[in-house]
Amino acid sequence: MERVIKVELGPRSYTVRIGPGALDSLGPIAAELPRAGTAAVIADSNVAALYGATATKSLAAAGVQATLIAFPAGEEHKTLPTFGRVMDSLFAIVPPIDRDCIVVALGGGVTGDLAGFVAATALRGLRWLQCPTTLLADVDASVGGKTAIDHPSGKNLIGAFHQPAAVLIDTAALKTLPREELRSGLAECVKHGMIADATLLDFIEANAAKMLAADEEVTTELVARNVAIKAGIVSADEREASLRAQLNFGHTVGHAIETFLGFGRISHGQAVALGMTSACTIAVDRKLIDRSVADRLERLLALLGLPARRPGLDAERIWGIMQHDKKARGGHVRVILPLNLGRVSAFDQVDQCEVRKAVEKLAQAT
Amino acid sequence: MERVIKVELGPRSYTVRIGPGALDSLGPIAAELPRAGTAAVIADSNVAALYGATATKSLAAAGVQATLIAFPAGEEHKTLPTFGRVMDSLFAIVPPIDRDCIVVALGGGVTGDLAGFVAATALRGLRWLQCPTTLLADVDASVGGKTAIDHPSGKNLIGAFHQPAAVLIDTAALKTLPREELRSGLAECVKHGMIADATLLDFIEANAAKMLAADEEVTTELVARNVAIKAGIVSADEREASLRAQLNFGHTVGHAIETFLGFGRISHGQAVALGMTSACTIAVDRKLIDRSVADRLERLLALLGLPARRPGLDAERIWGIMQHDKKARGGHVRVILPLNLGRVSAFDQVDQCEVRKAVEKLAQAT
Repeated sequence: MERVIKVELGPRSYTVRIGPGALDSLGPIAAELPRAGTAAVIADSNVAALYGATATKSLAAAGVQATLIAFPAGEEHKTLPTFGRVMDSLFAIVPPIDRDCIVVALGGGVTGDLAGFVAATALRGLRWLQCPTTLLADVDASVGGKTAIDHPSGKNLIGAFHQPAAVLIDTAALKTLPREELRSGLAECVKHGMIADATLLDFIEANAAKMLAADEEVTTELVARNVAIKAGIVSADEREASLRAQLNFGHTVGHAIETFLGFGRISHGQAVALGMTSACTIAVDRKLIDRSVADRLERLLALLGLPARRPGLDAERIWGIMQHDKKARGGHVRVILPLNLGRVSAFDQVDQCEVRKAVEKLAQAT
Repeated sequence: MERVIKVELGPRSYTVRIGPGALDSLGPIAAELPRAGTAAVIADSNVAALYGATATKSLAAAGVQATLIAFPAGEEHKTLPTFGRVMDSLFAIVPPIDRDCIVVALGGGVTGDLAGFVAATALRGLRWLQCPTTLLADVDASVGGKTAIDHPSGKNLIGAFHQPAAVLIDTAALKTLPREELRSGLAECVKHGMIADATLLDFIEANAAKMLAADEEVTTELVARNVAIKAGIVSADEREASLRAQLNFGHTVGHAIETFLGFGRISHGQAVALGMTSACTIAVDRKLIDRSVADRLERLLALLGLPARRPGLDAERIWGIMQHDKKARGGHVRVILPLNLGRVSAFDQVDQCEVRKAVEKLAQAT
């Protein structure tokens, strides 16, 4: 049931292969790259233990000499010090790596971001293969070439655009993923439905239980549909001028909530669920959408076990954090608001009052 | 006597302005960029004291709010920890910077490399203006968009390609430059002559004394000729496949000598002079050039006070270091060798024996 989707980016185009067991083709895919001889597989300690040997063996069998570099698991390690230690390990490989070395990012979003940024900057740019192992990374981080690390002032503040040479998504890996992490990925799937494809919302609604059980057939179809949506958007607009900005639906407020609560105190999916809910509140207040659109979103989130409320949010401080956002421009913030199911648009002039009202609603008991 | 040279790189094209007093146009040049409103001027402690106020005042007068970020002077600070501290300062600016912020790199090669890498990676890429203040940076780092920091395993191992929005070269700044630093720049000028323009070697020979006295008219002409040579090469080959590799003439062995002696124990110009001399030795041994070409180079270096010999070099260890070079591929090293005055070519299969012989010659007394 393997699915192959091409991300069209001119000379930087690449393919995404999706299906159970896709990781077994890592070696052959790497060996097909010009001058492939060595690889560095970067994974966090958890994923290194689960899939590190599968990856390095597949590479070795294809004639690519691979070194496994592990770093401590957790978003709190997506930092400059960890980046430095991974670089130390990379440059300690014997014989020393050259520009032909291939970086393999094996793991979730943190690994893709960190290892991708290592690939973007080691020797001013190495080729990399992205092997996401979480649903969130499968449907979000695997397309777009965004790499980054966090800074104490905010998430993803230091990074680069660096497209992978190919992406391999092994949907069998979702079997070992905690339910909460599946939910995080499903939040991004809901986002894609909200911005681009109302029928995807129907598909999620109809198959929610199978998705939460990591059914291989349903998740392969789910991932393929989401990758296709994101690939279409990214192909049209590689460096997020306008169209790509739509992918930030739920993320401007969502990121601020994550920063406010502190890394690790809320899952990314929960934060995006809250961000989408607050965007709907603003849109209802602006009469951009009917209340029924917001209700449909909240019902779907509930079906997936994702929150539409969160007590204890401080609207003033969250507004302050939003001023740090990369998309903030001159006092107001840009927020993506829904126009209907499957359609959104960017609004530059969202003000403090609207954001406060929406965040205060999130903090209310239902 | 201002000279303007365009670096042709398609959508990333930019102009280089050269002349005494060019730094006074920093403000107007910055203000011409779309959405210019804020800037971060990054300089080392020495240059911040000399020219920091000139730069920030010029920006303020043009309506661009500028913050000066200083870091400790010296190549030994072109590291990941310094990069992190500059990022800390950048993200501590109030109100927080957004993607419209312009980075100004004010200083020598270290500053251009470090601040350029900050610009390449802060918020996944900010626009930057390069204002070199040393002859070396004027003729070398100011064209090409290479940015990087050092790693304990070698120079420039972590970096990115990121073209500036414009370059301003104030040749009056050369008046405050130590003689030894002028020599470092002149070594790169000799390199450009050797790889692309024998008449530049004549010009340097005829005006060596004025160049070492930082005469404004002669240095403006010198910088313009060198920028034009480098711009031509970089335009033809932005990411150094083959043509751009010629700019590494003198640098493969030169970088290894710098690493062997330790940062700060030899100037970059001295190392490049030694690297060019050793490349000539290899080329004479291979009968690519006549001994007279090597002699001409050594006479010119002597006229400029640059070395063609250096006692104490360990040929074995320098070979070992060269294996770490970004251009090393599979055991052999790629070295650029002269074919004549004004013409060079890359040779991939230079072996340990040839390098050892050339380095041992450098280490001999004359």
